[in-house]
Amino acid sequence: MPDKIIKMTRSSQDDNRPRPVMLAIAGDSASGKTTLTKGLVEAIGEDRCTSICVDDYHKYDRAERKELPFTPLHPDCNYMDILEQHLQLLALGRPILKPVYDHSTGTFTRPEYIEPKEFVIIEGLHPLSTKLTRACFDVRVFLDPPEEIRREWKVKRDTGKRGYTVEQVLAELERREPESEAFIRPQRRHADIVVRFAPITSRQDPPGTPLSAELMLRPTIQHPALANVLTDDHRTAMHLKIMRDQDGTPTDCLHVHGHASTEEAKQLEKVIWEELASNGGPPEKLGEINPGERSEPLALTQLILLYHMLMSEKERPGS
Amino acid sequence: MPDKIIKMTRSSQDDNRPRPVMLAIAGDSASGKTTLTKGLVEAIGEDRCTSICVDDYHKYDRAERKELPFTPLHPDCNYMDILEQHLQLLALGRPILKPVYDHSTGTFTRPEYIEPKEFVIIEGLHPLSTKLTRACFDVRVFLDPPEEIRREWKVKRDTGKRGYTVEQVLAELERREPESEAFIRPQRRHADIVVRFAPITSRQDPPGTPLSAELMLRPTIQHPALANVLTDDHRTAMHLKIMRDQDGTPTDCLHVHGHASTEEAKQLEKVIWEELASNGGPPEKLGEINPGERSEPLALTQLILLYHMLMSEKERPGS
Repeated sequence: MPDKIIKMTRSSQDDNRPRPVMLAIAGDSASGKTTLTKGLVEAIGEDRCTSICVDDYHKYDRAERKELPFTPLHPDCNYMDILEQHLQLLALGRPILKPVYDHSTGTFTRPEYIEPKEFVIIEGLHPLSTKLTRACFDVRVFLDPPEEIRREWKVKRDTGKRGYTVEQVLAELERREPESEAFIRPQRRHADIVVRFAPITSRQDPPGTPLSAELMLRPTIQHPALANVLTDDHRTAMHLKIMRDQDGTPTDCLHVHGHASTEEAKQLEKVIWEELASNGGPPEKLGEINPGERSEPLALTQLILLYHMLMSEKERPGS
Repeated sequence: MPDKIIKMTRSSQDDNRPRPVMLAIAGDSASGKTTLTKGLVEAIGEDRCTSICVDDYHKYDRAERKELPFTPLHPDCNYMDILEQHLQLLALGRPILKPVYDHSTGTFTRPEYIEPKEFVIIEGLHPLSTKLTRACFDVRVFLDPPEEIRREWKVKRDTGKRGYTVEQVLAELERREPESEAFIRPQRRHADIVVRFAPITSRQDPPGTPLSAELMLRPTIQHPALANVLTDDHRTAMHLKIMRDQDGTPTDCLHVHGHASTEEAKQLEKVIWEELASNGGPPEKLGEINPGERSEPLALTQLILLYHMLMSEKERPGS
């Protein structure tokens, strides 16, 4: 019945609909995905940017999972085929009816209708898990904080917003560890950019110093020409270093130190922004962790992601 | 970004997955869709046939609809684009996560994962509403009982199974009438087969006589060669008549009278079945309205639909 496919294609009015720029932000639970995403959405504007958390494709609700040997990190616990399908649809500019899992009750509720805007940010545990999900993105990011930092973040968030005890959170982390290792961390090697926020162990920075950022910029996509920008003038606060990835592939590594001054950071931001030939300066909201709490390493990380999103948009046919 | 489409296509493993035969059964509420479908699923076998009611694509739940000027019959009350998308996916042999509307509470519940089997029967209010939905089907059926018969069926069902009073059901029918006229009945002209179960007004059949069936067999698909079968021998119980459709198009009309004997009907069934060159006789379960209550006109209607489903399957590439 190839005739039916032709009929469906011909009956579909939307072949020329614009296709969004798709950014993946993958990472384990409490690895900083939401904080990173928030600044990007604010910088682009909610009218032009859709952000979607894709951790609702569970096959089982909480009660059912109690009888099962795996956690939500396991692909077998999720409709990975539907996740792949929905990412493809969004990448083609089509709407989806996304399942909604209510974390407070552990049950499924009313699905959400989502139409992709010009830019789509997909954050979650599994967006880089399969060849097909990866193919849907223009830029792929993996958040890779040291485990002790992630544990700290998770305890803080889940005891605060989600009402668990410290012991419960730590037990859950332990229970999930084998599946984190098997299914979440392997996505790291499929990212164009690996982001690690961590303190610099060789320094004794005063409390309140933001974490430093270490960005592995893999040559799988074309990055801004930082090598021309990061001259000796910037060496104290940030530097770029060519190195070998875990598997031996050459890659670039950008370090932005937590003690970098706003002034130093802004100078670099300005240069990256100018490469985009955009009007005005870089968006003000970048780098905000909480209202009033700002991090230059976060701001520069977001700026580089923003650079890639805007560059991908320029490359769209008809742009 | 045409590269992304190529990447997605290449990453998709399922291009050679078998595509199901798709049958649409459209019609207004309580027009007999479920009864017709049930016999077909039993004849083919649940292991080979998926039947799906697609009346759950509402945009609003019951409480929200109370504030709105339309009923669920109105396309604006439904995610028609998602319905189109899901029908396309099923037609391509792909799974869907179907929304589920709970009629007892009037709210949305956990979506259902559905993988199409070899045969897919889609019944509902809107499956022939748009050019794209229609393009997804191999065979399109519209159920068109006279309004007084449908009213009787709806009152019986909704006061019984659904717990409404007769007055409530009649008021609801009246409220829905303008939208039935505007959005449901126009689908009739897009069907390959229009089925009407009704008493023969010129006869005074004893109570308990099954309704007669009038099947408009439009030349949009190739029907079994009934003209060769329906010789004068069958004239009392059934006959075939060439006629003009409401819009003047020539079409065939098969009448199966409610007073046809099982023996007469079985003879015709056998001939249609032989045209399919299938082994054994036609499935026994055809024609069952309720356990123990049988209708030959229903059996023959189902047999003709079965004929088309099996014929479509034979035409599949690789079959």
